[in-house]
Amino acid sequence: MARTNEMTIREVRRDLHRRPETGWCEFRTTALVAAELDDRGYEVHLGPNALDVGSRLGVPEDRDLRAAADRARDQGATEAYLDAMDGVTGGVAEKTFDPAGPVVGVRVDMDALEITEATSDEHRPAREGFASEYPGTMHACGHDGHTAIGLGVARAFEETDDFDGTLRLFFQPAEEGSRGGLAMSRTDHLADVDYLFALHLGFGRETGTVIAGFDRPLANGRFDVTYEGTPSHAGHAPQDGNNALLAAVTAIQGLYAVPRHGDGATRVNVGRVRSPNPQNVVADRAEMRVEVRGETTEIRDWMVDRAKRVVDAAATMYGTEYDVDRCGWADSFEADERPVDAVAKAARQHPDVDAAVRRDRMGASDDAANLIRRVQQNGGEGTYVLVGASNPDGHHTAKFDIDEDALDLGVEVLTEAIRNVA
Amino acid sequence: MARTNEMTIREVRRDLHRRPETGWCEFRTTALVAAELDDRGYEVHLGPNALDVGSRLGVPEDRDLRAAADRARDQGATEAYLDAMDGVTGGVAEKTFDPAGPVVGVRVDMDALEITEATSDEHRPAREGFASEYPGTMHACGHDGHTAIGLGVARAFEETDDFDGTLRLFFQPAEEGSRGGLAMSRTDHLADVDYLFALHLGFGRETGTVIAGFDRPLANGRFDVTYEGTPSHAGHAPQDGNNALLAAVTAIQGLYAVPRHGDGATRVNVGRVRSPNPQNVVADRAEMRVEVRGETTEIRDWMVDRAKRVVDAAATMYGTEYDVDRCGWADSFEADERPVDAVAKAARQHPDVDAAVRRDRMGASDDAANLIRRVQQNGGEGTYVLVGASNPDGHHTAKFDIDEDALDLGVEVLTEAIRNVA
Amino acid sequence: MARTNEMTIREVRRDLHRRPETGWCEFRTTALVAAELDDRGYEVHLGPNALDVGSRLGVPEDRDLRAAADRARDQGATEAYLDAMDGVTGGVAEKTFDPAGPVVGVRVDMDALEITEATSDEHRPAREGFASEYPGTMHACGHDGHTAIGLGVARAFEETDDFDGTLRLFFQPAEEGSRGGLAMSRTDHLADVDYLFALHLGFGRETGTVIAGFDRPLANGRFDVTYEGTPSHAGHAPQDGNNALLAAVTAIQGLYAVPRHGDGATRVNVGRVRSPNPQNVVADRAEMRVEVRGETTEIRDWMVDRAKRVVDAAATMYGTEYDVDRCGWADSFEADERPVDAVAKAARQHPDVDAAVRRDRMGASDDAANLIRRVQQNGGEGTYVLVGASNPDGHHTAKFDIDEDALDLGVEVLTEAIRNVA
Amino acid sequence: MARTNEMTIREVRRDLHRRPETGWCEFRTTALVAAELDDRGYEVHLGPNALDVGSRLGVPEDRDLRAAADRARDQGATEAYLDAMDGVTGGVAEKTFDPAGPVVGVRVDMDALEITEATSDEHRPAREGFASEYPGTMHACGHDGHTAIGLGVARAFEETDDFDGTLRLFFQPAEEGSRGGLAMSRTDHLADVDYLFALHLGFGRETGTVIAGFDRPLANGRFDVTYEGTPSHAGHAPQDGNNALLAAVTAIQGLYAVPRHGDGATRVNVGRVRSPNPQNVVADRAEMRVEVRGETTEIRDWMVDRAKRVVDAAATMYGTEYDVDRCGWADSFEADERPVDAVAKAARQHPDVDAAVRRDRMGASDDAANLIRRVQQNGGEGTYVLVGASNPDGHHTAKFDIDEDALDLGVEVLTEAIRNVA
Repeated sequence: MARTNEMTIREVRRDLHRRPETGWCEFRTTALVAAELDDRGYEVHLGPNALDVGSRLGVPEDRDLRAAADRARDQGATEAYLDAMDGVTGGVAEKTFDPAGPVVGVRVDMDALEITEATSDEHRPAREGFASEYPGTMHACGHDGHTAIGLGVARAFEETDDFDGTLRLFFQPAEEGSRGGLAMSRTDHLADVDYLFALHLGFGRETGTVIAGFDRPLANGRFDVTYEGTPSHAGHAPQDGNNALLAAVTAIQGLYAVPRHGDGATRVNVGRVRSPNPQNVVADRAEMRVEVRGETTEIRDWMVDRAKRVVDAAATMYGTEYDVDRCGWADSFEADERPVDAVAKAARQHPDVDAAVRRDRMGASDDAANLIRRVQQNGGEGTYVLVGASNPDGHHTAKFDIDEDALDLGVEVLTEAIRNVA
Repeated sequence: MARTNEMTIREVRRDLHRRPETGWCEFRTTALVAAELDDRGYEVHLGPNALDVGSRLGVPEDRDLRAAADRARDQGATEAYLDAMDGVTGGVAEKTFDPAGPVVGVRVDMDALEITEATSDEHRPAREGFASEYPGTMHACGHDGHTAIGLGVARAFEETDDFDGTLRLFFQPAEEGSRGGLAMSRTDHLADVDYLFALHLGFGRETGTVIAGFDRPLANGRFDVTYEGTPSHAGHAPQDGNNALLAAVTAIQGLYAVPRHGDGATRVNVGRVRSPNPQNVVADRAEMRVEVRGETTEIRDWMVDRAKRVVDAAATMYGTEYDVDRCGWADSFEADERPVDAVAKAARQHPDVDAAVRRDRMGASDDAANLIRRVQQNGGEGTYVLVGASNPDGHHTAKFDIDEDALDLGVEVLTEAIRNVA
Repeated sequence: MARTNEMTIREVRRDLHRRPETGWCEFRTTALVAAELDDRGYEVHLGPNALDVGSRLGVPEDRDLRAAADRARDQGATEAYLDAMDGVTGGVAEKTFDPAGPVVGVRVDMDALEITEATSDEHRPAREGFASEYPGTMHACGHDGHTAIGLGVARAFEETDDFDGTLRLFFQPAEEGSRGGLAMSRTDHLADVDYLFALHLGFGRETGTVIAGFDRPLANGRFDVTYEGTPSHAGHAPQDGNNALLAAVTAIQGLYAVPRHGDGATRVNVGRVRSPNPQNVVADRAEMRVEVRGETTEIRDWMVDRAKRVVDAAATMYGTEYDVDRCGWADSFEADERPVDAVAKAARQHPDVDAAVRRDRMGASDDAANLIRRVQQNGGEGTYVLVGASNPDGHHTAKFDIDEDALDLGVEVLTEAIRNVA
Repeated sequence: MARTNEMTIREVRRDLHRRPETGWCEFRTTALVAAELDDRGYEVHLGPNALDVGSRLGVPEDRDLRAAADRARDQGATEAYLDAMDGVTGGVAEKTFDPAGPVVGVRVDMDALEITEATSDEHRPAREGFASEYPGTMHACGHDGHTAIGLGVARAFEETDDFDGTLRLFFQPAEEGSRGGLAMSRTDHLADVDYLFALHLGFGRETGTVIAGFDRPLANGRFDVTYEGTPSHAGHAPQDGNNALLAAVTAIQGLYAVPRHGDGATRVNVGRVRSPNPQNVVADRAEMRVEVRGETTEIRDWMVDRAKRVVDAAATMYGTEYDVDRCGWADSFEADERPVDAVAKAARQHPDVDAAVRRDRMGASDDAANLIRRVQQNGGEGTYVLVGASNPDGHHTAKFDIDEDALDLGVEVLTEAIRNVA
């Protein structure tokens, strides 16, 4: 396997870019990270020791997980790390520089998307030979860069050794779909974190922009709902059916009728609807995926309660069974003043930062929120940092790329901010 | 009070026509009937002794019942009968001519409608001075004639005394809205009935037509449904409301989506919908009346079960309370061969009968069905006889009237049919 | 008729409180105001000359308007003013102190509510003998005070005569239900207004509080919707009906499903639903009142468009006719800096003002917004001033009252603010 | 290619059973039939000359049709017949025995189903080596037998030559899904048919049962409905979407709420629902297949009108485009007395017929109805004959088979019935 120790941060990012792994399949990525941090003297926790296995959401089929682990093995991932993962990706690595100082966490995500990367020469990864080698999979949201920055922070402190505290690095799997944050937020690794920094590259901001408190995302909750009814011939015996399609239809109507909330914005949407029965059979099955959002975690929770009530009652109305499977979960949060100040100060002092923004509202969701909320509940503080990275095409598109100059900038601002809070 | 003993059947009908009493308010009518049959040596059971008080449907407010009883008293209704009724109208009268013979029942209904009778000269009751004296109330469905015929049958057997069995006369209240039949079907008076005859005048058929088995009505069930939610200001705090209107709306959608039935016709309809909140308050109340029908009693029961499931689930979906109050209930039935034969034979032999029809399908509902079904369940047999009565305007209209020649014809055919089964 | 000229502002308020007139029925109030301003040398425009008659919303039946005008006449309202109104209440009065100066508008509202006033001694109007003399009608929102303040401003400038501009006073009818603002905003009287001040008393704030820019109400739009279908017997011929109830039900589902808006808050609610057919008749009529709101006027307009599309399509789906009648309309607005500054400065300098708040968000709606928006569209500026007035019970309740000390304070702050912009 | 001339009817059935062709793909079957009837001196019309090409419903993609024709060619189908078909299967063959006599039609269907045939030894076609050789395709409804019987009738008359009229044989494609009958009913070949006989094997009746008038199927109409809306991000800009899923949901609610019909049974059902957008995107596409039925052709037409109104209005409500594509169409019919008599007489006289039933109600649909209705509209008469054929498993299942003794019986009864009407 490649040894990241011998690579620059930029080279690490390119290595990961070539071998993108989607959510819960980041076996090679996790093993690479573990190897370098092991070497650097970090205490490394992997898979079941890094996150709460039962809280994982939207986990692929077992065979898909095994295939991903096998591929990582074929690519040279160290067997010992694969064994430690035991089928569960993700890692937490920790090093104490000064036991009297604060515990400072950094959270980065590692997963790629199911997108086929562009192959034309105008797309730099293609032109320079580091485009995805895995068909249908692509780092189209910059998480390759995030992982590399995570390692970069570790290197920065090792070189200088001037940090008066404990550094704890969270390499989170499955951020896409808000599937991994919940599991990673439910471990003791967060219990004593004093300051947590999460970060993201890009988001339409140019290299040289840093937002110290990129917060207040819409919290979300996602659910796969399946209704199972009773089929019957729609001509001869419609009365014998329990119509799963009508249950779903009634639920969808009810979901969009969940009222607005006086305390803040809400959203509700339904996708992936399918009821496959032929038209002459009363539907015995209907599936859908429901997403609710709220301006705060509390409003999201209220939306979830209302949505569940609707889903349940629709099953009762049509005499069907049903199943609700949570498949995504991201909280909202407000960044805390101290870490925001620490980043803002670091950014203002960095020679390559043109625009040091104190706060801005995050448009999207990120389940880093779950970790930040957990830290805040324990009395710690957190923020989410946006590091601009000029990119020609939007996130989640086939030509997404990042300006790699943002990588070192990200490492440097984050490192300085960490020193500022210590 | 008038003494019907001294009146012809036609005069009895006119007396009742002038003093129409709506469902559960037939105090004077019941008292009149009781007086004559008492005189004729019948054993008379009134009110609580004639029907199951707890099974009455759509009963007016207590004060309305009291006002109706007071009016009857003012009109001279015998106090003893009013006492016996104890606020509950209806009566069963019985006389045994030959204890070895069969028990034969005759069921007639007595209630009027909330219709204001026409006052123009072209309307005979107005022209001849026997139009309704009670404002807003009218015998617009011929039940005045039915009651008169019931007495006529008693007179016929008394005169001839040639009946080898027991005659039991059921004077049912509150047929309109299918409110009284259920209560009258749930007493022991029906337990040993061998043959039951119910009858109706008119229904668009001319005088001289008799249908011996007028059967297979659509069974029906009617319910008043009220949803009680939680109000809230629709602008400031829509999230605090539990929307009773949306519960009702969802229920209505669900009710009309109750599937067709492969074994026979069904119907569903909703009326009397009301949700009175102002438009800026989340609705805390919504009312509606639901009616379901089925080609058989069993299909109606299936519709009722489905409808109740819908109504219940809609309340759950919107977090409201709800109340369902049955307010009408009529079964379906098939007339039995022997009593149909008995009527058909009597009709064919009657000089004034032009068309003696063996069977035809009843378009409407009549809760006489509940009594007939009860007799059938006990091993007895029953039929429902249509006696044509030329009438210029339709039932339930302000100018409805009946050709009074049909009264004696009805008495004679029924009397002969009863002899035919004895 | 009473002559307000001879009354204090407090006495004017009490006179109006005793004779409250609901929306579009403010004949006596308008006449009183006209008389005093006429006397004071104002050019007075009444009824059709004060507002756009065709833009009135939620106008009562003609006979109710006539009865209200007759009552005003009986109470001594000057015939000439009633003639000028020609059935339409409301007035605009203008006086030019210095033609070179700006045109400054003041808008107050005059209408009462359909509430029965409390009669207990703990309610000051009852205790001190100025409670409503008109049954079922009450000044329960302080508009009596607003009208009095409007006259107070006129008196203030007359006494001092130190105003370098034109003063134009808008006495608006039918603010409750957002029914009058649209009509008053659609005249040339607003075309050249440089600064417009609207005001409201109370709103839970104590006497001594002034909010200089009480703005950003939720804009609203209200509509009475009626579906007219085709009745049919639900048992015999359901296929012949065009179900107005199902049209309304489908519309209601569709209305609550109008999507959230990414640019700001929205609301939708339905009330006053009624479908009166009996349960055995396919509904030929269904009525409802729909209210939509938006955080901005533009979002409200978008909601209205969507709502109308839903209402229209539901009629098509069930083959019914329908009618949509706008019955309420209030815009949103943002107060402008200059008039806000002018009020804030006046408030800070007033000895009885404890809390001079620059800006706060209006929770409710007020169709003064329509006038302010119109002024802003013409290049003018406006604000809406909240004058605290300690009151024991909430607005729109039977015991609502205002601390009358707020009347003079309101006049003084407003007068000073007007001088500040001139 | 196989030459059916040299096979018994039973062998023809087995040959077809091994090479089942689904609707509109019956190229080999059509060519086989054409070859034999050509040889026997029939005038043969194929494809565009046999049916109205534009009225075909549920036609597969062009490439699927070409693949099916290529497979038939590979299997030895005569090029000349494939050329004549020009991509359109189905044939009409005619022979005039006596130009003075009546024109008698026989209609059989030829298509197979998308079912994978059982391979276990208990299934006779597998055991005896004539199971389907085409994966996923199977004659699971007996149409192989119908086609063989069609040829058998031709052989019977050729041998005896004692028929005084014209025999016209209709070999219809795509009966499954009611896709071919409409196209075949819209040609002049039916215009002068005096008597038309259609037939079906099996339907749960044992060999030896013949129903002479198997009629009054529920007429049906099937439609593929697609809504195309506007996608938007459900979090950032839900207001920019036009929600195709909500259009479909509203349509489904509306479809199930189409009222019952007082003149006879109706049905409505929806299947194959799909809306594939991710849960965070407002749905831009939703598909469904709608089926309506009616006890008569007229009631079906009424259902279609109502359903289309619903589908159209739902698109309007949500601002989407939509497309409705008819994909199935079967009328209802009542069999005529003369052909029913002719079959009943033939059945009673046949030594192997145990139960000669005059009439029974068809439970299912068959688009032979379209042809029969067309003949009736032209003054001709028709019937649909059920020929019992003991079969262990139900129609449309992997183990469906027919008792081949029913083949000759079917030919003989049909032949005799034809002689009876001539």
